[in-house]
Amino acid sequence: MRNILIIGIGSGNPEHLTLEAIAALNRADVLFIPDKGTEKAALRHLREEICARFIRLRSYRSVPVPIPARAPASEDYRGVIDGWHARIAGSYRALFEAELAEGQTGALLVWGDPALYDSTLRIMERVAATGLPLDWQVYPGISSVQVLAARHRIALNTIGGPILITTGRRLAAGFPADQDSVVAMLDGEQAFARLDPEGLDIWWGAYLGTADELLIAGPLAEVSQEIVAERAAARERHGWIMDTYLLRRRA
Amino acid sequence: MRNILIIGIGSGNPEHLTLEAIAALNRADVLFIPDKGTEKAALRHLREEICARFIRLRSYRSVPVPIPARAPASEDYRGVIDGWHARIAGSYRALFEAELAEGQTGALLVWGDPALYDSTLRIMERVAATGLPLDWQVYPGISSVQVLAARHRIALNTIGGPILITTGRRLAAGFPADQDSVVAMLDGEQAFARLDPEGLDIWWGAYLGTADELLIAGPLAEVSQEIVAERAAARERHGWIMDTYLLRRRA
Repeated sequence: MRNILIIGIGSGNPEHLTLEAIAALNRADVLFIPDKGTEKAALRHLREEICARFIRLRSYRSVPVPIPARAPASEDYRGVIDGWHARIAGSYRALFEAELAEGQTGALLVWGDPALYDSTLRIMERVAATGLPLDWQVYPGISSVQVLAARHRIALNTIGGPILITTGRRLAAGFPADQDSVVAMLDGEQAFARLDPEGLDIWWGAYLGTADELLIAGPLAEVSQEIVAERAAARERHGWIMDTYLLRRRA
Repeated sequence: MRNILIIGIGSGNPEHLTLEAIAALNRADVLFIPDKGTEKAALRHLREEICARFIRLRSYRSVPVPIPARAPASEDYRGVIDGWHARIAGSYRALFEAELAEGQTGALLVWGDPALYDSTLRIMERVAATGLPLDWQVYPGISSVQVLAARHRIALNTIGGPILITTGRRLAAGFPADQDSVVAMLDGEQAFARLDPEGLDIWWGAYLGTADELLIAGPLAEVSQEIVAERAAARERHGWIMDTYLLRRRA
């Protein structure tokens, strides 16, 4: 039996690690580090900083995990993701077998919280389903949505109201008629800028928890273009961007 | 100017504190501890344990905050909450003035994450609106929903799907037709047990992160009564209960 620790490491601020996550980092024989290519080099640097700072045993071993490229999105979004996850599960299985002896423990470091728009847990199910004897435990981490709310000093919900967390892809269809607080993640196409801004406020943040953090808030009609411009400039400057936002219907 | 640190301390496991939260605890001159009466004595004990374990300066001072009783829920839910928050804001203002000198820093310890179904941030806005010069910063914490997902080793969302976080009160109206993953919080009346269970799975947890943690998962039709019975027995045993759950439409 091999054991894998799935560790949420927050959205970029090393101070957001929990004591539990730090202890888990220190129990791993091998750290598996997903490698999605150059675009995420800044994140890789942050992750290395976290390991160097918190892992007491200086001889820890880290192994890059080549993440196969995803086919371009198509009509069959779930099908594309499904095939992609199958290939990633194959990579993980091969690495677990090659790099971990029976009884050893590996760790997978996940940005944010493994429960929120991250595929690691689904991929672990798939690896286990191939028949490799495997156990795993999960350690929650502070997600970018929580940092967004903390930095803007707001609650995500109105009093007794629901919160919808969704994707830019879905939000592009319109602000849901039956919701008042909507958080968008994975929005590469600025869905907020194509909504009818009437009566909506936005709290936006990028590179949350890092030294490059950007925050903009206000009535969507007034700040939408400022966010689009700021986002484009930051993306140009850094070569990548990760952002998220809360939209709320004004009371 | 007085300064207040709003610190998320997780749902009960001291190991879930972040390094940032621990550093914030150590910057406070005074800790304000909400006192909601005997029912939450177990939580108060946990909170005292957190302070004793993490605050290095042994002379820290903690001040109980008497939380006024809330009027019974009525048709006018928001009105009741609004009046209650106004009274709490009055208590906080009086305490900040009495217990903190100008330039001093107080801390409010919040279970879970201050952004999720907690009123502290709204109450701070109200205190500031009374004209007391005040600044405050927010430190996110691991919420019970994150612990629920971690302990059940599941993602809250399906692939590319949304997550609705809502209250038991709202869920009682029925599982939303346009959602596939719904998290219920503050459900004192077991709304899950009154839904049509057909096609729904549930992942339930109580006292998440504590030594008393309970976890049950399965098809809602099969485990609903088990959860109701387990919940009632645990509540009887401990004198209180905090629980949360994810419901998902089976694919």
